[in-house]
Amino acid sequence: MKPNRLIYLPLGGAGEIGMNCYVYGYGPEGRERLIVVDLGVTFPEMETSPGVDLIMADVSWLAERADRIEGIFITHGHEDHVGAVGHLWPKLGARIHARPFTARLAQGKLIEQGLDARVVTAHAPRPEWVEAGPFRVQFVPVSHSIPETSMLLIETPVGRILHGSDFKIDRTPGVGEAWDEAMLREIGDEGVRILTCDSTNIFVPHPGRSESALAEPISELVAGARGMVAATTFASNLARVRTLARAGQAAGRSVCLMGRAMRTMVQTATETGLLSGMPPLIAPEDAAELPRDRVMLIVTGTQGERRAASAQLSRGKYLGHEMKAGDLFLFSSRTIPGNERAVTRVMNGFSELGVDVLDDQGGRYHVSGHANRPDIEALYALIRPRVVIPQHGEHRHLREHARLAGTHGLVSDVVTNGMMLDLSEDRIDVAEYIETGRIYLDGSVLIGAIDGVVRDRIRLALNGHVTVTVVLDEDDAPLGEAWADLMGLPASGKRGGDLSEAIERALAQFLGRADARTLRDDARLDEAIRRVVRQTSLEEIGKKPEVTVVVSRLSAG
Amino acid sequence: MKPNRLIYLPLGGAGEIGMNCYVYGYGPEGRERLIVVDLGVTFPEMETSPGVDLIMADVSWLAERADRIEGIFITHGHEDHVGAVGHLWPKLGARIHARPFTARLAQGKLIEQGLDARVVTAHAPRPEWVEAGPFRVQFVPVSHSIPETSMLLIETPVGRILHGSDFKIDRTPGVGEAWDEAMLREIGDEGVRILTCDSTNIFVPHPGRSESALAEPISELVAGARGMVAATTFASNLARVRTLARAGQAAGRSVCLMGRAMRTMVQTATETGLLSGMPPLIAPEDAAELPRDRVMLIVTGTQGERRAASAQLSRGKYLGHEMKAGDLFLFSSRTIPGNERAVTRVMNGFSELGVDVLDDQGGRYHVSGHANRPDIEALYALIRPRVVIPQHGEHRHLREHARLAGTHGLVSDVVTNGMMLDLSEDRIDVAEYIETGRIYLDGSVLIGAIDGVVRDRIRLALNGHVTVTVVLDEDDAPLGEAWADLMGLPASGKRGGDLSEAIERALAQFLGRADARTLRDDARLDEAIRRVVRQTSLEEIGKKPEVTVVVSRLSAG
Repeated sequence: MKPNRLIYLPLGGAGEIGMNCYVYGYGPEGRERLIVVDLGVTFPEMETSPGVDLIMADVSWLAERADRIEGIFITHGHEDHVGAVGHLWPKLGARIHARPFTARLAQGKLIEQGLDARVVTAHAPRPEWVEAGPFRVQFVPVSHSIPETSMLLIETPVGRILHGSDFKIDRTPGVGEAWDEAMLREIGDEGVRILTCDSTNIFVPHPGRSESALAEPISELVAGARGMVAATTFASNLARVRTLARAGQAAGRSVCLMGRAMRTMVQTATETGLLSGMPPLIAPEDAAELPRDRVMLIVTGTQGERRAASAQLSRGKYLGHEMKAGDLFLFSSRTIPGNERAVTRVMNGFSELGVDVLDDQGGRYHVSGHANRPDIEALYALIRPRVVIPQHGEHRHLREHARLAGTHGLVSDVVTNGMMLDLSEDRIDVAEYIETGRIYLDGSVLIGAIDGVVRDRIRLALNGHVTVTVVLDEDDAPLGEAWADLMGLPASGKRGGDLSEAIERALAQFLGRADARTLRDDARLDEAIRRVVRQTSLEEIGKKPEVTVVVSRLSAG
Repeated sequence: MKPNRLIYLPLGGAGEIGMNCYVYGYGPEGRERLIVVDLGVTFPEMETSPGVDLIMADVSWLAERADRIEGIFITHGHEDHVGAVGHLWPKLGARIHARPFTARLAQGKLIEQGLDARVVTAHAPRPEWVEAGPFRVQFVPVSHSIPETSMLLIETPVGRILHGSDFKIDRTPGVGEAWDEAMLREIGDEGVRILTCDSTNIFVPHPGRSESALAEPISELVAGARGMVAATTFASNLARVRTLARAGQAAGRSVCLMGRAMRTMVQTATETGLLSGMPPLIAPEDAAELPRDRVMLIVTGTQGERRAASAQLSRGKYLGHEMKAGDLFLFSSRTIPGNERAVTRVMNGFSELGVDVLDDQGGRYHVSGHANRPDIEALYALIRPRVVIPQHGEHRHLREHARLAGTHGLVSDVVTNGMMLDLSEDRIDVAEYIETGRIYLDGSVLIGAIDGVVRDRIRLALNGHVTVTVVLDEDDAPLGEAWADLMGLPASGKRGGDLSEAIERALAQFLGRADARTLRDDARLDEAIRRVVRQTSLEEIGKKPEVTVVVSRLSAG
């Protein structure tokens, strides 16, 4: 019998920022008992995933071993950690463990998909242990930008792992637990062999700043405003939502939340007792009755999402409110790389309305939820691991993080999605490369990123589409003329002629000369017609469109 | 007869950064003689203009008045100022005026389109005047990030305009003319009534930095490198190209340019005598023969463009060169908002190869070519205009610029594309709103942005496409079954069934029940089939695809 081993396998989140999904296993090779940490999503973009609703890790490897999964642990309630629970749980089927607030959010995801929310168990943090096969797991509270974020202390037969998840060092986070240095040092004293760790801000050289540093600047800003004030922040950043709300209240304004995510988060946090001290809230229709200098809106849409409240407000009237000259709109947030154009569109929309727009002003109105470089080093010093595995970063972040760990004398390397490690000893040994990838939620269906569906859509978007129809009679002779329907293509070519007519002329010529062998053979005919269409289009408009050829054979009818 | 008036009409570049195109006119209303300043392009993006090659201002208004155009003036050789010359000139047909280097670039654009390059006249700068109907125009040399950039001093019967174009205050630009404060003060002394002015960096509070500030940090960086060094910068920034090349030379490296734009620019600048002191260059194949620590590559692709040299190098072997661990890649550039993901992809590609990647490090390796806020104020002080019209900016930039001008006691306001001003007096009076927009170069064809072609492509990308074919006999009865071809859609639905079969079943059911009136009427049948397909798809996959319906009637054959 093979000896037991400890394995680690990132399926998502290692080599990218988003769709976190990590696996730990212990047991004889090929029979390890497994735990899963986080089931997150990534958001699609027009350039590489048009029409897609959500992106998540391909968990086929796990699904094939579902009988070996001892539990799924969710570290916190951000979408890139919990967002795929409703879509992926049916493939895995194991019990989900989380702290109460996160558990509520996970249950919401299951219920949305018509699943039984009772598979989620809520747990108290350290010192409680959750048993999961060969593992015991403790939720270790840390500060981040959503309450109840936890590292996971994973006890294995060959030493302890601290799964670092997302964190920042914040001793005064306002809402959610403060950074507890004593507790983390104690964990370090107890002995942690392996630390897996957030790499998001590895390139930021200065120590992170506390959420509480924002209260004064935001209050001053709101106090000095004359018209309506609206601010957007991440709905899950409840400390920020409260800071904004209190700034409004202090300035004698009634506070109104806009956007579904904002209301859901505040409600869930209030119900789970996490959010106290929120000013009273009023409904949008009631806020619309007040003088504008008595209103403070807190809205969704930090990333310029077209349907979010911020974008709606930037385009005009929304829920009875219309911002105008003299009003102020604050982005108490950062723009996630790739969303710059969308955010800029919203800013310019407000500018056109005469609204003063402020971004975070280089950190005055926003702080990051992730540990900066010195904060990561501070964690090393508390935990004193022997091995550091960088997580939660693009390749360049992981590489820099591994380099940093190396300078501290720690064993470290870049480990990306699909690299299964054997961590039985203090070495980073790749035991096996697992095929990984992405799954898309597309409408109501899950499809593989490499199925070709989205690739075809991108081609349609770049090249346009031509449908060609040919009817052949019982003797395989063309009945009437072939015709072409265009979509997403210029109606006329460079020389001014009609494109579909030019294609039809070329097709008529081709069909007039085509031999019986071609006309008899669907595949051959399809290929030849496609070539005629693409060549003619190239000459006429300088573009080769996608082509669907429909051959109707009366013989087959 | 109506009195003479001075008009100003931005057709592109006012309310956006890109595709600059401005019109000035003088004469009786409706019969003004016109000059055009700049014919630039904007680059497309997948999100709003998939498949498009270039974007430029819709010059229909000008084309309808082509007989009134006295000349086209190009201020400098950046693509957003000269890039549309080859595509738009045929609509305008007037003589093009520019300084020699810019003229060469404009001629290149014309030749690429098979046009006569002799319509371009090269001019010496101030004190030479170019006569153009009621106007006299002087090219006023200023510093920017490409040599021979000029403001235009436009003399009109009702006072002088300084068309500010792009500029920065750089007293030691290296290549290209230095900021000449004395000359600009002299122009101010002569009297300028209206200043139209760059707004790109209006939000940057500190004075701009000189190009020459980069020589030392870049030299140090290259001197300290052990492996191969490659750097990318904007090909038109010849000062930077030379700084990089000299840093390579000083470190004992042979310098090699990669990328067509890079070679074209350096060649044009050398031929026009603008670029002296460049180290000798070697060809990529010769550089490949040298030890890697003896090579310095200067390459195109600052924005992560997929086919540019930087992206090619990040993916592996390119022109005989393969970067690897120990090598260094420098982005001596900034990422234009919207290109973050593409640039990041290139950075991560290099990271995977083990190459150390540096961005501009907060300005250490790059300076902007545009005037910052205090620089703009310095220009006010030299020119002392009465009216300031912000140009070259998004709405938020123009608004902030107008506000700044206001604080200096100057007449100013936000003037965006299509707002025709009467500037006969020191007031910003909108005389008329002109319909403006964008033209797309799509393959080899110019199409209007609102023609619907690109909108259809976006729909195809978001929703996928279904082709439905129905054959009807002489009596309008379906011959055989309708069938569906999918493109860009999942093959199977939520319940696991085949999507095209589900659609075909629904169509069979519909056709079996369809009344004669529907079957007889193409439009009615088309609409009904479309509805069936979209409804079935919504149920099966949660998405409503685009549909092309092809009805073949044998009666018509």
